[in-house]
Amino acid sequence: MRIELNEVASILKANDNYLILTHRNPDGDTLGSGFGLMHALRQMGKSAKVLCCDEIPAKYSYLYSDGDVGDVDGAYVIAVDVADEKLLGEGVYEKYSGKVKLCIDHHISNKEYAEKLYLRDCSAVCEIIYDLLVMLGIKKDAQIADCLYTGISTDTGCYKFSNVTARTHEITAKLMAIGANTVEINKLMFESKTRGYYMLESAALSTLEYYFDGMCAVMTITQKMLNDSGTKESDCDGISGIPRKIEGVLVGATLRERPDGTFKVSLRSHDPVDCSKICLKLGGGGHARAAGCELSVENIERDKQLLLDTIKEELDRDDRIYTAQ
Amino acid sequence: MRIELNEVASILKANDNYLILTHRNPDGDTLGSGFGLMHALRQMGKSAKVLCCDEIPAKYSYLYSDGDVGDVDGAYVIAVDVADEKLLGEGVYEKYSGKVKLCIDHHISNKEYAEKLYLRDCSAVCEIIYDLLVMLGIKKDAQIADCLYTGISTDTGCYKFSNVTARTHEITAKLMAIGANTVEINKLMFESKTRGYYMLESAALSTLEYYFDGMCAVMTITQKMLNDSGTKESDCDGISGIPRKIEGVLVGATLRERPDGTFKVSLRSHDPVDCSKICLKLGGGGHARAAGCELSVENIERDKQLLLDTIKEELDRDDRIYTAQ
Repeated sequence: MRIELNEVASILKANDNYLILTHRNPDGDTLGSGFGLMHALRQMGKSAKVLCCDEIPAKYSYLYSDGDVGDVDGAYVIAVDVADEKLLGEGVYEKYSGKVKLCIDHHISNKEYAEKLYLRDCSAVCEIIYDLLVMLGIKKDAQIADCLYTGISTDTGCYKFSNVTARTHEITAKLMAIGANTVEINKLMFESKTRGYYMLESAALSTLEYYFDGMCAVMTITQKMLNDSGTKESDCDGISGIPRKIEGVLVGATLRERPDGTFKVSLRSHDPVDCSKICLKLGGGGHARAAGCELSVENIERDKQLLLDTIKEELDRDDRIYTAQ
Repeated sequence: MRIELNEVASILKANDNYLILTHRNPDGDTLGSGFGLMHALRQMGKSAKVLCCDEIPAKYSYLYSDGDVGDVDGAYVIAVDVADEKLLGEGVYEKYSGKVKLCIDHHISNKEYAEKLYLRDCSAVCEIIYDLLVMLGIKKDAQIADCLYTGISTDTGCYKFSNVTARTHEITAKLMAIGANTVEINKLMFESKTRGYYMLESAALSTLEYYFDGMCAVMTITQKMLNDSGTKESDCDGISGIPRKIEGVLVGATLRERPDGTFKVSLRSHDPVDCSKICLKLGGGGHARAAGCELSVENIERDKQLLLDTIKEELDRDDRIYTAQ
């Protein structure tokens, strides 16, 4: 059942002993909104903890203290930034499926699995939590401001993505006035890359190839590059976005070699190219602007050609795209 | 002579026929504040043009129209975001040295060369222009909002740098509400790079050297790299930020070779290292977190060692930094 924000506030006042669930592979918004809400509930005299199926990356350690993370039996269960129960992840999904009483989310694709859902299409769940805390009369608190700034800044690519609104900046101004430690948080979230990351990026950039009058760029990351740079697969996330950033490119593909020699393909596109259509044809899937599929190991050259042909087909199909032909 | 913002407003009301000078190698803030001010002056019924010694990069073309750029004889001369007359650049410096009547700037290192100076230490001159336009009662205008958003977003690395304050976000919220086309501007400023840029980045990254237990990283861009990649000096701006982003690095230096063989040094630091102190000792200047100086051509190795020694001195000087010694 969809509810309004004042009903969320009433629920939080009426109950006690909260367990806040985040999604798996936790990011700044699920953690920022989870811990922000946890600190606020404690200020209200309630007990609250956060549970995540995965280990929380060390860079987020400023959001909480020892003892804030863990399971609580018989608690009132809230999920934040979790569009689908399955995203609660291994262990947490099995235990809490069908048991989430309240979900606070900003994904319009939310599966409405919770008993009550507050959904708003905005840049980050932390924007919603901010409004909620104002409604609840929570005292200004620098640690809560840190939590909410973390969610908003990370889910907007530090105010670069198209989900940013005037309200996003307004809330950020308030969080800074409260004392959010934005300099340190920005450093941790956006300005801190390993030496290995840049070794990998340098090598990957040197493989860039262009097709179809420069409308498609393909970058390759080999196992050798990963080994030489001492980086992990998670380090590739930022790099996959590069081919699309190149002037004139409508579809950017990153081919990432797996230890078994197969390749994971990450596609990114600009309007009007739909990556998910391309990837669906190749057995993968995803969103319009970001999707993925796999290339087999037996014949990588043949599979790469198939990928390029499928991309070409999609470019030709859309008569809003002016191709040379 | 230092003046207050209301005096700047009075001057703009009292005169007509303005020539607004930007600094050489124009960036988003000097152009955004220049054209933002130009559009506002025209709204006030005044004539105004912008002059820049260098060609304005094509990506900024949405800021102005044909005929907005050029020299005007007998005009009231204003400089925006120009800390030192010499930065007016070839041709403009020779003609307008000693003739700037009003300078609006945010560099605390401003040389006070203008007859009247309004100086405020804030993220971008565009923040000052915003306050000035409010004071002048300029009507809300989406193109002016585009200009001011451009300066603020680029001078803050899209809200990532430590120069961002609550006021920076407040002003941005207002600019978005007025209709600044932030999605398109962000794409142009931050998500649109040339093929050459990435060739240059790949080559530059491969030169990274580390000093002083990894607290200092040095990257070199040679004329050969610029030639091979077909990039211009202005393409280097984004790259200069990289060394500081590496984990553990407190001072990042980028050495950029000029056609004559001299090197321009861009320093970027994290708190508490003061780049401007390092650069001042070497005949340069700038801000605490971003500053610059020059290395001569006669003995680049000796000069580079001098730069490293000066950096080391600054690292050792501050007892908040734990060095291995």
